[in-house]
Amino acid sequence: MRELTCDVAVIGAGTAGIAAHRAALDAGVKSILIEQGPGGTTCARVGCMPSKLLITAANAAHGAREAHRLGIRVGEVAVDGPAVLARMRHWRDRFVASVFEGLDRLPAETRLSGRAVFEGPDRLRIDDHTRLRFKAAVLATGSSPSVPDPLQDLGHRLLTTDTVFDMEDLPASLAVLGAGPVGLELAQAMARLGVETQVFDPGDSLGGLSDPDLKAAAREIFSQAFALHLGAKVERGRVDGDGARLGWDGGETRVERVLAAAGRPPNVRGIGLELTGARLDERGSPAHDPRSLLCEGSAILIAGDANADRPVLHEASRQGRIAGRNAARIAAGEGAERPERWVALAMVFSEPQIAVIGGGFDEGADRLVGRADFCDQGRAQVMDEAQGGLRLYAEPGGRLAAAELIGPGAEHLGHILAHAVQDGLDVRRLRERPFYHPTLEEGLDTALSDLADQLR
Amino acid sequence: MRELTCDVAVIGAGTAGIAAHRAALDAGVKSILIEQGPGGTTCARVGCMPSKLLITAANAAHGAREAHRLGIRVGEVAVDGPAVLARMRHWRDRFVASVFEGLDRLPAETRLSGRAVFEGPDRLRIDDHTRLRFKAAVLATGSSPSVPDPLQDLGHRLLTTDTVFDMEDLPASLAVLGAGPVGLELAQAMARLGVETQVFDPGDSLGGLSDPDLKAAAREIFSQAFALHLGAKVERGRVDGDGARLGWDGGETRVERVLAAAGRPPNVRGIGLELTGARLDERGSPAHDPRSLLCEGSAILIAGDANADRPVLHEASRQGRIAGRNAARIAAGEGAERPERWVALAMVFSEPQIAVIGGGFDEGADRLVGRADFCDQGRAQVMDEAQGGLRLYAEPGGRLAAAELIGPGAEHLGHILAHAVQDGLDVRRLRERPFYHPTLEEGLDTALSDLADQLR
Repeated sequence: MRELTCDVAVIGAGTAGIAAHRAALDAGVKSILIEQGPGGTTCARVGCMPSKLLITAANAAHGAREAHRLGIRVGEVAVDGPAVLARMRHWRDRFVASVFEGLDRLPAETRLSGRAVFEGPDRLRIDDHTRLRFKAAVLATGSSPSVPDPLQDLGHRLLTTDTVFDMEDLPASLAVLGAGPVGLELAQAMARLGVETQVFDPGDSLGGLSDPDLKAAAREIFSQAFALHLGAKVERGRVDGDGARLGWDGGETRVERVLAAAGRPPNVRGIGLELTGARLDERGSPAHDPRSLLCEGSAILIAGDANADRPVLHEASRQGRIAGRNAARIAAGEGAERPERWVALAMVFSEPQIAVIGGGFDEGADRLVGRADFCDQGRAQVMDEAQGGLRLYAEPGGRLAAAELIGPGAEHLGHILAHAVQDGLDVRRLRERPFYHPTLEEGLDTALSDLADQLR
Repeated sequence: MRELTCDVAVIGAGTAGIAAHRAALDAGVKSILIEQGPGGTTCARVGCMPSKLLITAANAAHGAREAHRLGIRVGEVAVDGPAVLARMRHWRDRFVASVFEGLDRLPAETRLSGRAVFEGPDRLRIDDHTRLRFKAAVLATGSSPSVPDPLQDLGHRLLTTDTVFDMEDLPASLAVLGAGPVGLELAQAMARLGVETQVFDPGDSLGGLSDPDLKAAAREIFSQAFALHLGAKVERGRVDGDGARLGWDGGETRVERVLAAAGRPPNVRGIGLELTGARLDERGSPAHDPRSLLCEGSAILIAGDANADRPVLHEASRQGRIAGRNAARIAAGEGAERPERWVALAMVFSEPQIAVIGGGFDEGADRLVGRADFCDQGRAQVMDEAQGGLRLYAEPGGRLAAAELIGPGAEHLGHILAHAVQDGLDVRRLRERPFYHPTLEEGLDTALSDLADQLR
């Protein structure tokens, strides 16, 4: 067994880990990046990118089918499943390759391969080949899909976000367990690609929406896209030929494949965290400061999906940079910095899209609510996409605090709103800005105007 | 002839005039709105809205034809011209109707119908029925399409933006004179709707682009969409059966219809401005302060397309409000206010879209240039829309001064950039904001990062 020492050990070579390693190297300390397969980031390999590729094809099929509404006559629309999946994988592999290219530009002597396990507060074992002493460590081990108990024995009939993008052809039918962002995106894409799709979720919300009005709007919209079972928990699952039979309180169904999309818990177990001095909660996750990312009672920082805080790429990337810089500071005997958190921003790339900014709706808060409806929004009508709504939540003094929307272009309006919340902008100030006509952004002005009336 | 007096006379009931009249009424003065046909705003009747409706149908046809690139097999795509045009007019008429509904909510005694002509610095004649004395007037007479000399005798073969949306069916072929925003939008839409389309412009720019790199990119992109004749001035036009024959230095062509899209000069002639004391330039337009909108030597304010300054709806609407408020102040013996101008913002709803912010490229200015390319932008690749580029122009100290882009989602990125320029934000500050992944907005961060490297 080789014995090595370093200033900073970064465990995990995904988005957060790579960013942390780079930041530590930039700070001038000796940093080691420890990589365990399969390589490529969650985002590029099994997350953002392949899902958006499927969605692009699905929306094209949907658009072709609906073009008659605009005066365009289209012959039969046939989905070539293997071709759709092949294009998805072609681009996915390019995105993954560019992750590897980035890694290969790092100095080779700063990288180690293998599974890292803590053996104490300042040392790791990597497989059986290396012992690594560190002054600070960054835990960036990512997340893995959870598989609900009733699906455990379904064999190849069970898909997770780790395996769904490797299908060679589309199934005839699919049950999606989980109506969060990932479940909703994939369910709608599959339905538009001709897969008979059902969605199950024990809750009453779709895509992470929390505003009661918008939740209701989403239920109405998406129940036209696929069979939607909300308040339904799948309790039984068994193999049925090449398919699976699922049962819940209220019914039973047979599908060809089942997609578990009920979350990706962090990879924090079985890696010896209990030997580090870090205070762990009942699920084995270390308590940490969400700003410095430092785990209590240790010199370990936790970034990206591993802290289960905001499992989205832009946060993983920023958290990685913060954790890497702070690890370097701790290794140099300095205290950790605590930069302000960014405004929370979550998006769903369904049609219509969803965006939740600053945590969205907050029942208990003393807030004014500004409303706009995409059903009578000019540009949305022009584009034949007039559905959904927008809610802005402002403090009584007029400062924009949060927002939530389901509607066309939510990914774009979401950015404007997120930046406005983060910049601490006031409703009156926000109205003194140009909104071009005819754009979806004018919907923001409608809701801002509603707020301004309440502030008079 | 009836004799009336008022505080404020507003000439023209388009976007600017209606806003001015409302603002004057809100200020508590006696305002009269003088309306001359055809009614409905330029935007709703012959501008933004009908063009965007055509573009929606055109893009649907294009999307269906290109869906095979994504693995979606689509049968024959046929454009039902009358159906496309009927949907366009259905919605156009609804938008126009909502303008009329807004007018009808105004007090009837504040409205007059007819053509208004100045008879002196403080009085107007309306047709032959009314003389109106005013303390201040708002000139909001809008604009009309210009018809180049060689097209004057083409009869019904000549279309302008005032008539093109009333066609019952699409022509087989079309020549578009003018490659500015309106010409470019309509040319691409017509081409995608199956009309054999040629575009002529004496200049070398498309859609108002001014950055040399982006102009070149646009020429390459759009020359694949239609026959593009830049540097070509149509010098001869004559009737040829039900079509027209056009000649320019370099060729001759026959088309079924010709669309004059070479600008909409302001309606400032033949309305007696020379009797008002306002200082007029050689084209008869009054010299005015672009902030207060007050015309030199008079108590007349000029707003919207009539001042030919920024002929876009959001400016017409704001200018109307400013002019109406200032007219009320002048009528009350107070001075005019001079609010800061908004950042200039122009957009073209082509595919890819174009946006020019803060005037765009400025050859003489001492500016840093941040670059990003949509050809290798992740989301653009995913959506099969990877073309175009982005240029950010920053002052040497780091403040964002202007921007220009051609690419997918330019209407959305354009808003973020316009607000950043108007808020006076610094490149470093702009980078400390979340950009969700994978979105087109990340392209902004790429260009900002390029600028940040230069600012180090």
